[in-house]
Amino acid sequence: MREQVAQLAFVTIVAVLEQAYFSMEVIWARRKYTVSPPNTSGHPTFDRIFRAQLNCTEYFPLFLSALWVAGIFFHQGFAAFCGLLYLFARYKYFQGYAESAQGRLRPMYISASFLWLLIGLSLLGLLDYFLHSHYGVRIKPSLTSWML
Amino acid sequence: MREQVAQLAFVTIVAVLEQAYFSMEVIWARRKYTVSPPNTSGHPTFDRIFRAQLNCTEYFPLFLSALWVAGIFFHQGFAAFCGLLYLFARYKYFQGYAESAQGRLRPMYISASFLWLLIGLSLLGLLDYFLHSHYGVRIKPSLTSWML
Amino acid sequence: MREQVAQLAFVTIVAVLEQAYFSMEVIWARRKYTVSPPNTSGHPTFDRIFRAQLNCTEYFPLFLSALWVAGIFFHQGFAAFCGLLYLFARYKYFQGYAESAQGRLRPMYISASFLWLLIGLSLLGLLDYFLHSHYGVRIKPSLTSWML
Repeated sequence: MREQVAQLAFVTIVAVLEQAYFSMEVIWARRKYTVSPPNTSGHPTFDRIFRAQLNCTEYFPLFLSALWVAGIFFHQGFAAFCGLLYLFARYKYFQGYAESAQGRLRPMYISASFLWLLIGLSLLGLLDYFLHSHYGVRIKPSLTSWML
Repeated sequence: MREQVAQLAFVTIVAVLEQAYFSMEVIWARRKYTVSPPNTSGHPTFDRIFRAQLNCTEYFPLFLSALWVAGIFFHQGFAAFCGLLYLFARYKYFQGYAESAQGRLRPMYISASFLWLLIGLSLLGLLDYFLHSHYGVRIKPSLTSWML
Repeated sequence: MREQVAQLAFVTIVAVLEQAYFSMEVIWARRKYTVSPPNTSGHPTFDRIFRAQLNCTEYFPLFLSALWVAGIFFHQGFAAFCGLLYLFARYKYFQGYAESAQGRLRPMYISASFLWLLIGLSLLGLLDYFLHSHYGVRIKPSLTSWML
């Protein structure tokens, strides 16, 4: 089983570390702008950093789901590569949002593109799997040879 | 490995698409009621839609955990079927909550029932697995033949 | 596949049940302090219980990710054991936060330690896997024999 998921597991731990970094940024912002828990608001910059972290946290399970299904049913290496690009776009999103609400937009669209790509690859991979197991038809080999 | 999880992976991607739809509803509500990020409040209807999406997001990882453990240790097809019913109840919950706080209650109870069913099946499946591997006892065959 | 993940699946379901318990505590606090949805604030005790549940919910996917990667690539039994200790620390965190903002701190640090331990074990397990598959080198046997 390990060889089918090792690269996905690696990207997963990178994603966990990125979330840990975002959480620490929130803790630092809490100290800097003196916003004590359970308050979640108090200074515009803190509010944006808090929302940036919350947004990344909300998307984290969606991202992992699409990453793993795309990796297991489409192509592990390609899914892992898209996953790393998604995580980089999320990092730029966090930085941009910390500066201004406007600054979050471009990296948000880029990260959304990579998420949709992973969802699309998941659907293609699953379609290929079900077509193959029910009708013996394969669509993936021609797709991957054309893509990679 | 793929044949043991293909149906679970399919329901997972359906769940991701449902969450993407909820997120878009929030974005549309932001525009309609002019609630700009990082604000998360401003109009009663927006507040309800925002809370509905947040609640579904909170339950998403719990749902996937129970879906996969029930599917791997109890019965993949039955878990996937319960999963689709859960996702349909969540859709009705989102629609109901968008209309009124009262409107969320009935589909909320229904979705909770399917989640508890998946948790129960997970526990039964794990009990069966550990009883079998330690004492050679099986409880699942009689259960599944009675249920399905 | 089942024998490689059975203990992780068990800890996962314990974690789901713990989250269900936290959610119910929020519902009970909503009734006690008459804070009706979609409101998420209204009484200091309710606010703390609500934040405690939200914090545990945010960490839930990070915890599961680290638990499974550590369990599959380092050592299933040891990862499951650390996972149970994490969940116990989270229970103490929830209780402590419900009493006072100060009361959440100690169990929060303890739960964070177990999460970092799982992340560290994940990285070690993955390092061992990639070193072994690319260079035939193993670092885990000596580590686990020293640890366990």
